Amino acid sequence: MAIKNDLLIRAAKGEKTERTPVWVMRQAGRILKEYREVRNKLDGFIDLVKNPDMAAEVTIQPVDILGVDAAIIFSDILVIPEAMGLPYEMIEKKGPNFPNAIRTHRDLKKLKIADEDSLGYVSEAIQVTKKQLNDRVPLIGFAGAPWTIFCYMVEGHGSKTFSEARKMLYTEPDLSHQLLQMITDSTITYLKNQITAGVDIVQVFDSWAGILPESHYDIFALPYIRQICDAISEVPKIVFAKGAIASRKSIGDVNCQVVGLDWNMNIRESKGLIPFKVLQGNLDPAVLYASFDVVKKETKAMIDAFGKDRHIANLGHGVYPDINADKVKCFIDTVKEYSVRG
Amino acid sequence: MAIKNDLLIRAAKGEKTERTPVWVMRQAGRILKEYREVRNKLDGFIDLVKNPDMAAEVTIQPVDILGVDAAIIFSDILVIPEAMGLPYEMIEKKGPNFPNAIRTHRDLKKLKIADEDSLGYVSEAIQVTKKQLNDRVPLIGFAGAPWTIFCYMVEGHGSKTFSEARKMLYTEPDLSHQLLQMITDSTITYLKNQITAGVDIVQVFDSWAGILPESHYDIFALPYIRQICDAISEVPKIVFAKGAIASRKSIGDVNCQVVGLDWNMNIRESKGLIPFKVLQGNLDPAVLYASFDVVKKETKAMIDAFGKDRHIANLGHGVYPDINADKVKCFIDTVKEYSVRG
Repeated sequence: MAIKNDLLIRAAKGEKTERTPVWVMRQAGRILKEYREVRNKLDGFIDLVKNPDMAAEVTIQPVDILGVDAAIIFSDILVIPEAMGLPYEMIEKKGPNFPNAIRTHRDLKKLKIADEDSLGYVSEAIQVTKKQLNDRVPLIGFAGAPWTIFCYMVEGHGSKTFSEARKMLYTEPDLSHQLLQMITDSTITYLKNQITAGVDIVQVFDSWAGILPESHYDIFALPYIRQICDAISEVPKIVFAKGAIASRKSIGDVNCQVVGLDWNMNIRESKGLIPFKVLQGNLDPAVLYASFDVVKKETKAMIDAFGKDRHIANLGHGVYPDINADKVKCFIDTVKEYSVRG
Repeated sequence: MAIKNDLLIRAAKGEKTERTPVWVMRQAGRILKEYREVRNKLDGFIDLVKNPDMAAEVTIQPVDILGVDAAIIFSDILVIPEAMGLPYEMIEKKGPNFPNAIRTHRDLKKLKIADEDSLGYVSEAIQVTKKQLNDRVPLIGFAGAPWTIFCYMVEGHGSKTFSEARKMLYTEPDLSHQLLQMITDSTITYLKNQITAGVDIVQVFDSWAGILPESHYDIFALPYIRQICDAISEVPKIVFAKGAIASRKSIGDVNCQVVGLDWNMNIRESKGLIPFKVLQGNLDPAVLYASFDVVKKETKAMIDAFGKDRHIANLGHGVYPDINADKVKCFIDTVKEYSVRG
């Protein structure tokens, strides 16, 4: 069945559209009181990720409430380590914690490639969502990039420097590549299952791209993103590597349709470096703290800088949880109105 | 009296030197067991900063133990907010915390411009250090850049996004500029006092440069660094803006002699963007986790990329506290041997 509003898919394929499509990273989340109501019924964030009906409910909320041009399945990039045999907990106000971080070959041997069954709850959430969305807008699937997943599995928790993870690249390059390959294989299976379950496009998030020097990004990050993009041909692919300002040109050469920009990446310069891809982004999420007038002005300036072709509007990172939802709506409405072709 | 080993000062001025000078950000610190012994005699980090004799002792340790070409006064960038009337505490394994963060005009009114007296303990530590160093190597003074200090004063603690600080730039630009100006005025007084007390060169650290979009860096960060550099003419100046990869060209236009590069900044590209300054940096600090052979190889590659002129060798960020001091020594010795002019 055809998707009624398929602007995002057509734009991702490089087609000219009536206006620029728009969605917001972390649109399903704490900015919406309707999300907080659902979330509060459960003990923890991970419980919500594993409850297909409730995950579907919060996935669809921003379509109804904010009017975005796509839903993104409510989940977490860290379901992959868990499916590989490395469980984690989410500590309130602190973030994820892996009690058994990977540091040695012995640790690695305890892991497996994630199989279809271990992430069945995500497929189920996608099926429920697709049914309830009723083809109003496309559904985005996603996964973390192998380097970012590696960071958490080796460090064991969030960090500003991920020095344990980066240490392993220097001290145990073979072990690092083995782990990255296991994550990559797991991620390909995972994304293919998401596609089978119904997602219309996928995004790969490399949240910690920015902490690697370019030379290491080329060795330990990009080849695995490339493997994933080469393995997925069923739907369009978006690659968003936050902070990879020095690697934009190389990311532009990956087999994907769309490259996400963070808010530090100069739009005109990025267009020059990545001439053959559709670009996504990249309003500074902090702009949404400003007045409605400033939000409108900055959003228009962003649309002007990208131009009306080959662009998917978004923030340059996930929306901050304490942002007023009306400001997010203002961003979305401004894109919708201002980007209409004359 | 002339400094015996003045390689750093001559290199900073752009003069040709017999070899590349080398020092290490955070060289006086937890990597040295001799530091930990001194530190353990006191209750807290801030106590050490405020004890001139002990601060002098740990400042000189890396000169004796590691053989660096400069000492850097042991202190903390957050002494400035404290001198402005905003005290902080250092929470073990968590970092700094300001119980009264700045959010409103009312908060701002409680602050003052730091005066000479409030930071007398730093001047005293410098005087003791200079005496004990006995002109073996130059002594580096330093301060945080106004934007980085602003981050902590507004956010109240460390953060990955400093969204409260960035929020203020959008919601209260006038208040933001007032606070940045007060920090700048305090910092100029502070650095001038350090120079009077005896430092031979100063470095301005903009640790959180990388979280601002380029447009905001131009408005809220660079003009204040420029004021500081224009106000200091007694000694050479180093500006190190971590993560300011998109603003390198503008930083290169500031009135300083040396620009620091972080490990994500491509050396050859940076030389092209900043042709008229001496560059400092930029070995990935995680390289020091690797074997001695890898440390030597990577250090030589760095020297080759910078060339033997107009370079001060350093890491691309502070040394990680769990690095083996012998690896740091290996980095330093490799620079000293490999960079000798043929």
